[in-house]
Amino acid sequence: MKLLYPTSLELDIKSLEGFSVKLQPYDVKSPLPDSDLDADILVTWTNSPSNLSDAAKRLTNLKWIQSLAAGPNDVLAAGFDPKKVTITTGSGLHDHTVAEHTLALLLVAARKFYEMRDFQVQGKWPGHLGGPQPDRPKGKFTTLRDAEVLIWGYGNIAKALQPHLTLLGAKVKGVARSAGVRNGIEVYGEDKLPELLPKTDALVMILPGSDSTRHALNAERLKLLPKHAWVVNVGRGSALDEEALANVLEKGEIGGAALDVFEKEPLPEGSRLYKAPNCVVSPHAAGGRPQGAEALVAANLRRFLANQQLSNVI
Amino acid sequence: MKLLYPTSLELDIKSLEGFSVKLQPYDVKSPLPDSDLDADILVTWTNSPSNLSDAAKRLTNLKWIQSLAAGPNDVLAAGFDPKKVTITTGSGLHDHTVAEHTLALLLVAARKFYEMRDFQVQGKWPGHLGGPQPDRPKGKFTTLRDAEVLIWGYGNIAKALQPHLTLLGAKVKGVARSAGVRNGIEVYGEDKLPELLPKTDALVMILPGSDSTRHALNAERLKLLPKHAWVVNVGRGSALDEEALANVLEKGEIGGAALDVFEKEPLPEGSRLYKAPNCVVSPHAAGGRPQGAEALVAANLRRFLANQQLSNVI
Ligand SMILES: NC(=O)c1ccc[n+]([C@@H]2O[C@H](COP(=O)([O-])OP(=O)(O)OC[C@H]3O[C@@H](n4cnc5c(N)ncnc54)[C@H](OP(=O)(O)O)[C@@H]3O)[C@@H](O)[C@H]2O)c1
Ligand SMILES: NC(=O)c1ccc[n+]([C@@H]2O[C@H](COP(=O)([O-])OP(=O)(O)OC[C@H]3O[C@@H](n4cnc5c(N)ncnc54)[C@H](OP(=O)(O)O)[C@@H]3O)[C@@H](O)[C@H]2O)c1
Repeated sequence: MKLLYPTSLELDIKSLEGFSVKLQPYDVKSPLPDSDLDADILVTWTNSPSNLSDAAKRLTNLKWIQSLAAGPNDVLAAGFDPKKVTITTGSGLHDHTVAEHTLALLLVAARKFYEMRDFQVQGKWPGHLGGPQPDRPKGKFTTLRDAEVLIWGYGNIAKALQPHLTLLGAKVKGVARSAGVRNGIEVYGEDKLPELLPKTDALVMILPGSDSTRHALNAERLKLLPKHAWVVNVGRGSALDEEALANVLEKGEIGGAALDVFEKEPLPEGSRLYKAPNCVVSPHAAGGRPQGAEALVAANLRRFLANQQLSNVI
Repeated sequence: MKLLYPTSLELDIKSLEGFSVKLQPYDVKSPLPDSDLDADILVTWTNSPSNLSDAAKRLTNLKWIQSLAAGPNDVLAAGFDPKKVTITTGSGLHDHTVAEHTLALLLVAARKFYEMRDFQVQGKWPGHLGGPQPDRPKGKFTTLRDAEVLIWGYGNIAKALQPHLTLLGAKVKGVARSAGVRNGIEVYGEDKLPELLPKTDALVMILPGSDSTRHALNAERLKLLPKHAWVVNVGRGSALDEEALANVLEKGEIGGAALDVFEKEPLPEGSRLYKAPNCVVSPHAAGGRPQGAEALVAANLRRFLANQQLSNVI
């Protein structure tokens, strides 16, 4: 049995020893060498599209692909057949880093660090953002304390993010496909959005990219948000109608937007979002550094060898 | 008995009723009216220097001043005599807001939001700050997870900040005048700085302003920090030698600095700190919005009427 592991990140390979599996490193940006075409298992991370499509054609013995990315998009696009090859994702490996970045985006928004920076680079003191000020004024998003934060897409990342928000005093609610209480947080179905959005100070989108989430946040729903509300998106750019968002930002019909993901990445030069007021552009920087990959690979490898159901199968 | 309360912030005065004390509002920016010169107690918040020095001269019946600011500097500068008038501060009322802002400064530093902004305003995508990247690389401050955070000045604000840092995975240590374990965190004396500073990823200064803290962080101590370490200051500007800091920033001998307080505020136009690389200028925005003032005033009023020792006496 042979497992190919990527050299595109540092892995503690020693912690994967002791299985009856040959562990073989490979370069994710070049075609695989002929000597590796007998591999049973492929672990992927930031592979080039050509590496993956080459692998899809030539790894005829392959039974399982473990991606370390949160989603399987690149693997599926390369032409692997999910009927013949089990595909598992790295869902869970990015929870901590994405949660930290999302917390940062919310604080940058509430404390207006982007506006401070615009003053600083001109050598000017942004006095209006400091000094004595009203505490938790109604109709403004100036702190997470007592803020109504609605997380749309209440999966692994949301569950990692919520304790930080709660500790800062935010009131957290969730929206997902199925309603119910998760980790002590009330999660609603999307049918409740018309009631929830008007009471929201910060809407955090953590939806996966798919046909069913496309433009989930559209012009109609943006209209339901209060004038001071912020939108944060760390899921997928496709879940948000960027034209509709740019419109409400430019008209001041919304507090602001802090975005880590975009319909097209890099966000094209000339996009209105670069210059829209109160818009924070972050370059898909939330995740991108899997944590705990070895433990996931090891646990799935044990299950694979025992013919048990793997974790994170798509 | 008469208490004068400021109209410079919203106070829930109803919650102070039921004492045998007349509660009288006053304007903190004008001289007091003659009818209020019999006051026994003065609550202050953002008073103008002329209001305070006028009050110091004319409130001949005054027994106690409750400031809502963290420190008593403005009250002392106005000429009140601490031997005749008990002065109590608002220490504790700013813990939550300053902790939130300090957390934000640390995240802005680690995730480089200031650099993202510089690209954004030029309509450019800061690709080098996003996408796949190494996880917790040695010799860089890119996340709070596993970061060594040293808090110098381990009082109320530090105790409010620490749980947020610990929840993000930081390893928190403290420095104060006396050593010992506080709220489960190891706090060292200043004699241990030569051993602690070289192991620090982020140094958070929360020292009060006083002669003994002046330039506590000086050129010599800055040299002891690793090249990638960040300095965050939310205590008082006087605790940090700004010229020495600008030098190490300009030479790249330190990771960066995120500052909310300055030796002179507003930071003068032309200060090197506005343009120094990896320097984040925040306009004394951490606190400035007392929270829970009514509860402090009520508790101290009870003690005052019962001739007991007040809280937060300077
Ligand atoms: N910015 C970054 O760097 C970065 C990094 C990693 C991941 N991400 C993105 O974050 C996404 C979420 O990650 P995760 O680990 O939290 O995923 P997850 O655990 O699978 O959770 C996804 C959540 O979205 C909900 N959802 C899925 N499809 C939906 C639909 N059609 N309509 C409404 N809700 C839907 C799910 O609802 P149910 O709970 O009801 O099923 C679930 O609550 C990933 O798919 C990825 O695109 C971004
Ligand atoms: N940026 C803002 O908007 C803002 C807002 C509020 C407050 N602040 C500043 O933050 C400061 C700290 O507030 P806090 O409520 O945390 O104060 P605190 O509870 O009194 O704590 C002060 C800490 O500093 C230490 N310390 C005092 N004098 C020292 C000295 N000479 N050398 C070394 N350590 C010394 C104390 O040591 P021991 O514990 O050993 O006594 C204590 O750990 C305030 O004084 C104020 O200047 C800033």
